[in-house]
This record gives sequence, structure tokens and C-alpha cells, in this order.
Amino acid sequence: MYSQKEYSEIIESAINSIEFPSEPEGLYAPIKYALQCGGKRLRPMLTLAFAQAFSADPRSAVNQAIGLEMFHNFTLLHDDVMDNADVRRGRPTVHKKWNVATAILSGDAMLTLSSMIALKGCDDSVRRNVLDLFNRTAMEVYEGQQYDMDFENCATVTVDEYMEMIRLKTSVLLGCACRMGALVAGADEASQKLAYAYGEKLGLAFQLVDDYLDTYGDPVAFGKAIGGDILNDKKTWLLINALIEDETDEVKSQISSPTDDKIERVRGVYDRLNLPERCLKLANAYVDDAIAGLYGLDIPDDARRFFIEIAEKSRTRTH
Amino acid sequence: MYSQKEYSEIIESAINSIEFPSEPEGLYAPIKYALQCGGKRLRPMLTLAFAQAFSADPRSAVNQAIGLEMFHNFTLLHDDVMDNADVRRGRPTVHKKWNVATAILSGDAMLTLSSMIALKGCDDSVRRNVLDLFNRTAMEVYEGQQYDMDFENCATVTVDEYMEMIRLKTSVLLGCACRMGALVAGADEASQKLAYAYGEKLGLAFQLVDDYLDTYGDPVAFGKAIGGDILNDKKTWLLINALIEDETDEVKSQISSPTDDKIERVRGVYDRLNLPERCLKLANAYVDDAIAGLYGLDIPDDARRFFIEIAEKSRTRTH
Repeated sequence: MYSQKEYSEIIESAINSIEFPSEPEGLYAPIKYALQCGGKRLRPMLTLAFAQAFSADPRSAVNQAIGLEMFHNFTLLHDDVMDNADVRRGRPTVHKKWNVATAILSGDAMLTLSSMIALKGCDDSVRRNVLDLFNRTAMEVYEGQQYDMDFENCATVTVDEYMEMIRLKTSVLLGCACRMGALVAGADEASQKLAYAYGEKLGLAFQLVDDYLDTYGDPVAFGKAIGGDILNDKKTWLLINALIEDETDEVKSQISSPTDDKIERVRGVYDRLNLPERCLKLANAYVDDAIAGLYGLDIPDDARRFFIEIAEKSRTRTH
Repeated sequence: MYSQKEYSEIIESAINSIEFPSEPEGLYAPIKYALQCGGKRLRPMLTLAFAQAFSADPRSAVNQAIGLEMFHNFTLLHDDVMDNADVRRGRPTVHKKWNVATAILSGDAMLTLSSMIALKGCDDSVRRNVLDLFNRTAMEVYEGQQYDMDFENCATVTVDEYMEMIRLKTSVLLGCACRMGALVAGADEASQKLAYAYGEKLGLAFQLVDDYLDTYGDPVAFGKAIGGDILNDKKTWLLINALIEDETDEVKSQISSPTDDKIERVRGVYDRLNLPERCLKLANAYVDDAIAGLYGLDIPDDARRFFIEIAEKSRTRTH
């Protein structure tokens, strides 16, 4: 297996060597900008690593890896327009730097390009499965985003509904990235499903830790102010459980008539209900589950260690 | 060959039998709404008719036809957001009936679905070519929309630049629809290119007639007020030529400081320069060219007559 750094180099070099037409600049410049986002490149790394775990040259899956990364960046671009977000990873979002029309159109082009790239150099034997996996995942991601938006206008959301939403919005793309590597490497169906399950559970853990960090993280390490979710009444795992369990209705009254110390008051309810600890415990259970599944896979020990390390990091990450 | 009515019935029935998941309704209801637009269904009709012209059962190309129609409706949906248009064919646009976020997300889902449908039931022998044609065309359509937006903020646009813009924004999808039918029917490369050229020229003629009708059409037949392009300083073939040729600078002064009778004054300049007649003459030249190309195709006479009739109608259409 390569190191994370080696995979990163393959990915960055492949992204930098994508050849875009020079014209119209208004279409392609925002795409390049969105791709140079300084993200962790976790999805393409998982694709390369799973390809290698199943004995393929990781470079043989680089187009599928980059296609998924471009798809991911397309969803962030359009989500930022939908959420009216001004900043993404410390930089102005595309619709702020350019405008909404540019953001919509560049995103559309990224979506088409991402599926084109994911098929580039693809063996005829797996071409159809690669595209089916890509498209099915894309539809699930849109469904997840729709549920996420629906929940904001919904008085009651159950914990099960929330978990299904984050599975669709976040986890399926991680599952897809893992399965894509296994698929390109020619792994059998059962192995592909186990690879998918690893990514899917990792994604659920990631989102729960995200929910936790937005309220309980270190603002310096997290890179943004703490409490944004509380101020925006964002339906996170913490808020949903508090709305169900809090008998004092303190949270409901903070939503209808917020006081200056809203963050402290809502956090007080979370603390009283032991929600931060329960949230991390649940995230850890998904991490455990993701790791346990790796032992069903017929892959070399160093590959298993690689995936375990990624999963373990998600327990302790601060950003 | 079937009649236009028979093709329409196949198309409407196929569109009505697309099975969408029932949930999340907020994602799928706008897609169904956008598809039930009461459009002319010209693109899918061309696909079916070219498939039949090359001796295939037109129904064998119905998924490709519907995929292209859905792609077309996706572009209209997102264009309406970009142009902030409130009404499309007499109904509120998706972002007005729902909201901008819903319009963006439903459009994204339509784009993914359209390429999925275009590949459904596709013979392995043409699968790759179908997808290449679809994706290449999509990229060109985005480029055309980008140029169209660029031109609005551009003091000078040449006639050549304008013709290239409408070729990308409008014509390539018609060319693609024609070629798609020929491709699915197994026509050779040269025939596919001729089919494409027919659609492409038809598209150029269509857009020029559109430009003409917006200023010189009958508002009842056209279905909207006349002069909208003039009021919005839309860079049409008429305006671009007037900006180049008008030595009195009347048009430029109407753009910088419009008077109440702007439409009449700008139309007066157009008339003086003989632009309406020249615009229709150019459109007719493209129609002639589209028809002439049909004689290079080895298709039955009734097929040729069918395509000639569609082309002839574009000369005289009022809406």
C-alpha cells in the first residue's frame, strides 16, 4: 500500500492535469477554482486505496477517483448556492466570487464532466457497473440534500429519518468511492459490498462527529465559530434528540424566541441530556462497525491497517 | 414513416410511464412538472423519425429520445433560474412555483436521470457512442449558455460570435437528437454526420426566426408581448447587426437612455437597415441548406418528405 501522502500526490497531479478548454473562461475558471478547494481528498484516496487493496495498480482507478472528487465538489458548489453560504474552506464560494448564474452553470458542467472522467480509460468489462454505481449514488445524494432541506421546515424529525438523511447526503458517496476502487480492481460482488459498507459507516460517523464539533469543537482547530448550527436551528443529531427528550421545552422556546445566550442555553440542555457523550458514542459504534467489516475482506494486512487508521482518525479528529 | 401525431403519442406515453420514486416529493414533483411542459417535443420526434428513416423500429430509440427531451427540459429549468424568468409556456417556472434551491436540485437530478434514461436498453454496440454524443452535446450547450450570458455584458459582439453562440446553445441539441436516431438505428458515420447537420442547420434557422418573431411576430400567435428582446437589450441577430451598421447611433442611445417609445424607435432602425427581411432570408438559407443535405442521405422518400416538411414549417411558423 502507498501512504496517504503518496495517494494525495497521485490525486493532486491528476486533478492538475485535467485539460479544460480555455474558452468560455466564465464557465471553466469557476470549475478549476472549485476543484482547487484544499479539501482532504478523502473520497478519491479511498478509491485508489481500495483498488490497490484488491491488487490493482492504484493509478488504474485514478479517473474514477477524480470523477467522484469532481462530483463531490459539484455538490458542494450547488449546495452553497442553495444554502446561501458565503464562505467555503476560508475562500468565497463560487456564487459570491462570480454570481449565482455562473455557479449554477459551472456546477452543471462539473456534473457532466465528472461522469465523463469517471468513465475515461475504463475497461469495457466494468464500464456499465461504474456508470450505474456513479449515477445511482448521484441520485441518492440529491435525495439526501432534499431531505436535509425538507427537515429545516419540518417541526418533528425522528432520529431514524435523520440517520437516513445523512446516509444519503454524505455516506453513500464514501461508500461509492470505496466500492469504485474494488470494482475497477475486479473484486467480486461480496467484496464490493463490504467495501461500500465500510465507507458508508465511516460517513455516518463523520457526520455525527461534525454535528458534535459544531457545538463542542475547538474553534481554532475547527476553523469556524462554534455554535453555528444552534444559532441556525439546524436539525442535527443533537437538536433532534433534544427536541424529543427535553421536557422543559427550553430548546423549543430558544427556537421561537432566542435570547442573547442561546448557544449556552441550548448547550446546557444538550449537556443535561448527556447528548454530546451519546453522540460520540454512536459515532464510535459506527467506526467500530466499519473496522469490524474490514475483517471480512480478503485483503493484505497493510491494506486493512490503512483503512483502520483512516477510521480511527475520525474518532479523534478536531476539524 | 409515422405521422408527427403518432410520434408524439409514443413520446408522451413514454414520458408518462417514467417511474419516479414517490419520496422525497420535493425532489420529484418539480421534475414531473418540468416534463409536462406542453412543449413541441421536436427533439425526441427527430430521434424517433431518424431511427425509423434508417429502418429501425422508432420505439427502439424511445429511451434515447426521452433522455434528450429530459435534458432539454433540464436546461430550460436551470436557464429560467439564471435568467430570473417567472413564466415558461404560460405557467410559473419551477423556481417561482417552488423556490430557487428546489429548482437547482431538481435540475441536477434531471441531468443525471436524463443520461441514465438515454442509456436504458441501449445495445452494447452503440452504448459508448450514445453516451459520448450525449455528454459532448451537453458540454456544448453549457458553453453556449455561458457565451449568451457573457454577451449581455459585452459592448460588441460580432455576427460570427453570435451565430456560434446560438449553434452551441440551441442547434447542437437538435443535431444530437437527429444523429442519436441514426446512431441507434445503426447508420454509418457519414449518414450520422449528415443527420446531425440537418438538425444543426434547422436549429440555426429556428433561433433566427425566434429573434425575428420577438420583434415582428403576432403577439397572439407568439403567445407573449412583442418587443421583450428590445426592452431587455437582448443581443439578438437584429440588435447585433444594428449596433454594427447604424450610423445614427439611435440604438445605442436607446440602450443608454431609453424613451417611452423605445420599441418603435429601435424597430424603426431595424426597418431602415432592412434587418427583418435579411434575418428571415438568412434563416431561409439555413432551411434550404438543411433540406439540401437530406438528398445525400440514403433514406426512403417518405422519410425525406417528413424532414422537409418539418424544415419548411420553420419558415412560416408564427410561434
